Amino acid sequence: MPEKLLYLSQENVSSAGLSMARIIEVVEKGFEEMGQGRVEMPPKPGVHPGEGDNFIHAMPAYIPAMNSVGVKWVSGYPGNPAKGLPYINGLLIYNDIQTGLPLAVMDCAWITAMRTAAASAVSAKYLARPDASVIGILACGVQGHTNLEAMNVLFPLKKVYAFDTIPEQAEALAKYGRDTLKLEVEIVSDPKKAVTGCDIVVTSGPILKTPHETIRSGWVDEGSFVSCVDFDSFFSRNALNEADKWTTDNLSQYTHYKENVGFFKDCPGVYAELGELVTGKKQGRQTDGERTFAANLGLAMEDMAVCPLIFDLAKKKNIGTWLPL
Amino acid sequence: MPEKLLYLSQENVSSAGLSMARIIEVVEKGFEEMGQGRVEMPPKPGVHPGEGDNFIHAMPAYIPAMNSVGVKWVSGYPGNPAKGLPYINGLLIYNDIQTGLPLAVMDCAWITAMRTAAASAVSAKYLARPDASVIGILACGVQGHTNLEAMNVLFPLKKVYAFDTIPEQAEALAKYGRDTLKLEVEIVSDPKKAVTGCDIVVTSGPILKTPHETIRSGWVDEGSFVSCVDFDSFFSRNALNEADKWTTDNLSQYTHYKENVGFFKDCPGVYAELGELVTGKKQGRQTDGERTFAANLGLAMEDMAVCPLIFDLAKKKNIGTWLPL
Repeated sequence: MPEKLLYLSQENVSSAGLSMARIIEVVEKGFEEMGQGRVEMPPKPGVHPGEGDNFIHAMPAYIPAMNSVGVKWVSGYPGNPAKGLPYINGLLIYNDIQTGLPLAVMDCAWITAMRTAAASAVSAKYLARPDASVIGILACGVQGHTNLEAMNVLFPLKKVYAFDTIPEQAEALAKYGRDTLKLEVEIVSDPKKAVTGCDIVVTSGPILKTPHETIRSGWVDEGSFVSCVDFDSFFSRNALNEADKWTTDNLSQYTHYKENVGFFKDCPGVYAELGELVTGKKQGRQTDGERTFAANLGLAMEDMAVCPLIFDLAKKKNIGTWLPL
Repeated sequence: MPEKLLYLSQENVSSAGLSMARIIEVVEKGFEEMGQGRVEMPPKPGVHPGEGDNFIHAMPAYIPAMNSVGVKWVSGYPGNPAKGLPYINGLLIYNDIQTGLPLAVMDCAWITAMRTAAASAVSAKYLARPDASVIGILACGVQGHTNLEAMNVLFPLKKVYAFDTIPEQAEALAKYGRDTLKLEVEIVSDPKKAVTGCDIVVTSGPILKTPHETIRSGWVDEGSFVSCVDFDSFFSRNALNEADKWTTDNLSQYTHYKENVGFFKDCPGVYAELGELVTGKKQGRQTDGERTFAANLGLAMEDMAVCPLIFDLAKKKNIGTWLPL
């Protein structure tokens, strides 16, 4: 066959130079398409090799408006970091919608890190106060970094409170915030200081079936927005139920996680899906005093919204390896 | 990351030189594992780009006994042949069960063609008469070729009747049967001649939701085995209901296809899954006079049983392209 396939390693994907601002734009556009019922995204099946919480998920999606179809095949192995390997690994296959032929295979770790944060920022666009300038980041790993980057694109951030149980992680985020984003960063050892007084709070620790409930009632200020990247892991039930609006990116997946997997026990009822906010079918923030929350789960749609841009940039910049089909 | 990934094109995969005999062995072993409940294989979700019957399916499976886990992402575009492209295309990702990291990406067309025929042969091993020497092939495309190859591994074939509505396809199969397999091949224009008088019958045309029902009651001899590679497309309902044993490779997928997709209308009740035959939980052929049928659907398990062998052969023979993760 004369057809060819572009392979992009993790280094290739990140060096394509796709900006967080552009990722936020296409992820928002993807949520608009979803809100209009124009995205095909079946449930993601998984397999579970070995002991413990290992998983590998297949995440297919088709977005007609973006000429994008493909699948992300992504693994999470909790034991990997102890072996010096990343927790999350995987590949994404991007196909030609006209012929079904694969156009590209690319590493998915960078895309996953960026699009997850972009979805937080899209939620914040509809749910946070536009003048939000103080942000608290609780758990300062990959998602702590990318969420800070994404929020900084949309909001006039000035001050960051960084909390992590591992001091090196907090230091790394502080350095990134100061050197790259030119923000004032204060590392705090009391998690309350990364919540109370913050306009935006991001919890980005490990996702746990039994929440550690570090954040207590009374900590989240009136008027704040919280992005629960780690689902409900960081919050006491009382603190969660102070939410005026509790939202998610996909209700059917949320319901599956709640009813069949055991997450989101005793959480507030879901006010809206993100697609409903983006399309205006439901109102986002309506008053300055509301406490608004997003518990986004991560969708195949987001990956398939981003990968065509990376493919186009890589072709333009001659990045990657062309392979015969 | 120091980790590397092996890419195998369609040419690389076929030139690895894995034999049909070996593929039949591992596919049978895979069905044994399935029959013992030791394979994790969630339902395969799909997306459907464009108009008509286009599909792309994600097919994940994990076979602990073979240290194999991965996904096949395979498209079927009925309009492709008119564009000079194959109907079936796709890639398979093979992962390390210990770390979740991808080990290889390989073209899946060759594997799909071979493992589908191997599953037919495994069904035949349990359901056809061991002395079967006359075979009829109805529709002589890729599956006509590989099914003939696979049956020839397990049975003392002498004579082939080849039927196809496209004369060039029948000619191609005749040439392959004569030159490569050293069999006597007769091309027939009457489909009945590729059924009556045959010990094994393979129907390998396109899969249609509305069967064309070419094969009529009274055509299938007592004692014959039929592999319905194209589901129930070739058979009148009366002819199907002459089956003494109607089997499939996976009952839950069969039931889904029957109840939700519209295949297998008015077909006989399923006597056994192939895994039940392989493990001896149900008897295969019990008398010389039974008419036995297999309507296998194609399982991710089969792909994941085959791909580790290709990976090992390719490494040994220095085939393929090594890529950075």
